[in-house]
Amino acid sequence: MRTLYGVGIGPGDPDLLTIKACDLIKNSDYVFIPTSKGKSLAAEIASKYLVDKHVVELEFPMGDDNIDRYIESAHKIKNILGEDESAVFLTLGDPLVYSTYIYLMREANRIGIKTYTIPGITSFSASASVIGLPLTLKDESFYLCDSDVDEVVLERVNSVAVLKVNRNKEKIINKLVKHNFTYAYVKRCTQEKQEILYDRNQILEDDEYMALIVGRRK
Amino acid sequence: MRTLYGVGIGPGDPDLLTIKACDLIKNSDYVFIPTSKGKSLAAEIASKYLVDKHVVELEFPMGDDNIDRYIESAHKIKNILGEDESAVFLTLGDPLVYSTYIYLMREANRIGIKTYTIPGITSFSASASVIGLPLTLKDESFYLCDSDVDEVVLERVNSVAVLKVNRNKEKIINKLVKHNFTYAYVKRCTQEKQEILYDRNQILEDDEYMALIVGRRK
Repeated sequence: MRTLYGVGIGPGDPDLLTIKACDLIKNSDYVFIPTSKGKSLAAEIASKYLVDKHVVELEFPMGDDNIDRYIESAHKIKNILGEDESAVFLTLGDPLVYSTYIYLMREANRIGIKTYTIPGITSFSASASVIGLPLTLKDESFYLCDSDVDEVVLERVNSVAVLKVNRNKEKIINKLVKHNFTYAYVKRCTQEKQEILYDRNQILEDDEYMALIVGRRK
Repeated sequence: MRTLYGVGIGPGDPDLLTIKACDLIKNSDYVFIPTSKGKSLAAEIASKYLVDKHVVELEFPMGDDNIDRYIESAHKIKNILGEDESAVFLTLGDPLVYSTYIYLMREANRIGIKTYTIPGITSFSASASVIGLPLTLKDESFYLCDSDVDEVVLERVNSVAVLKVNRNKEKIINKLVKHNFTYAYVKRCTQEKQEILYDRNQILEDDEYMALIVGRRK
């Protein structure tokens, strides 16, 4: 049976891949990588594990709705893989957190490709580690969302991570301040040009797609 | 300066350690491991990386409040480490999610030990991967809590993970059903005796400390 491993490769530092991720890449017949306008951050991060591998690009433009592309890509994988061959699909962070992989996995299953998912280090765990911010102590709770924050939830949890903050930074920060959260803005977490901003104005002036905000109640 | 690396070793499968975690263990002068009644699951998981290392046990009985022990343990680390030596402290899952390490890190910082945190694969990410359950699609949100679930939050998120469910399973499941969530009970995720239960009665009859419930709105 054709097998596809959805492999989380973490947030950016190549050393944040798991042993399992490296082994699966090494032992797979093909490595499928998501590209956006021909570029692939996933392939950059995993580059040292891709030497001598059959690498196949699948184009998923960031920010776009890619529904047709999932169907097309699942068929492409099926056509390329031989009967008993296996492939990995590289995915940033964790495969089941805001990823293209989820849609691809569903399509692959639908057309008879067996899938396994390998968890990866999330950008919010890595960001919390970089700044030493506890996500949850005993009896606390954590809230993960993207683009905006639900204030009803915010006032009932102890920590939060907001992904894809780019368009809504001011609104998000105002809500965090209102509910007495400290916050940090983490850009390109664990990647070469990582930056951490705490100053409201600096954050508002910034324009980076790979950024998130983590917060914790004071 | 004395340096302590809080290293997440993931949920159970030794191959879910990151390359970075393995390298830090390999290059550290000491490895501190948390034990509960003399046993250490962390040391079991990382056993193949601990050959020929100076391993030092720190007793933190599971379920107890360990405030005095953090202070005592931080001092023990300070006393054992030479001026420019480094140590790792192994922690299950991710160091900043419901861990003993958070308290130890704070104490260590207070007495002049430099700390760095290395993220690990969480039990909830690994559980989602094992059952192929999406945690968050675009515009969705996720809620992480322990022991109980806040219904006000639950009705406003798309997925949930509840850790340390042992004492409250019936109450938690009733709330999940009421708010139209599917759920799975995952025991010893990615460990040798991993089990996944979906049946309400089987879950209620079970008695396992290392278990969690993940759920997703139907």
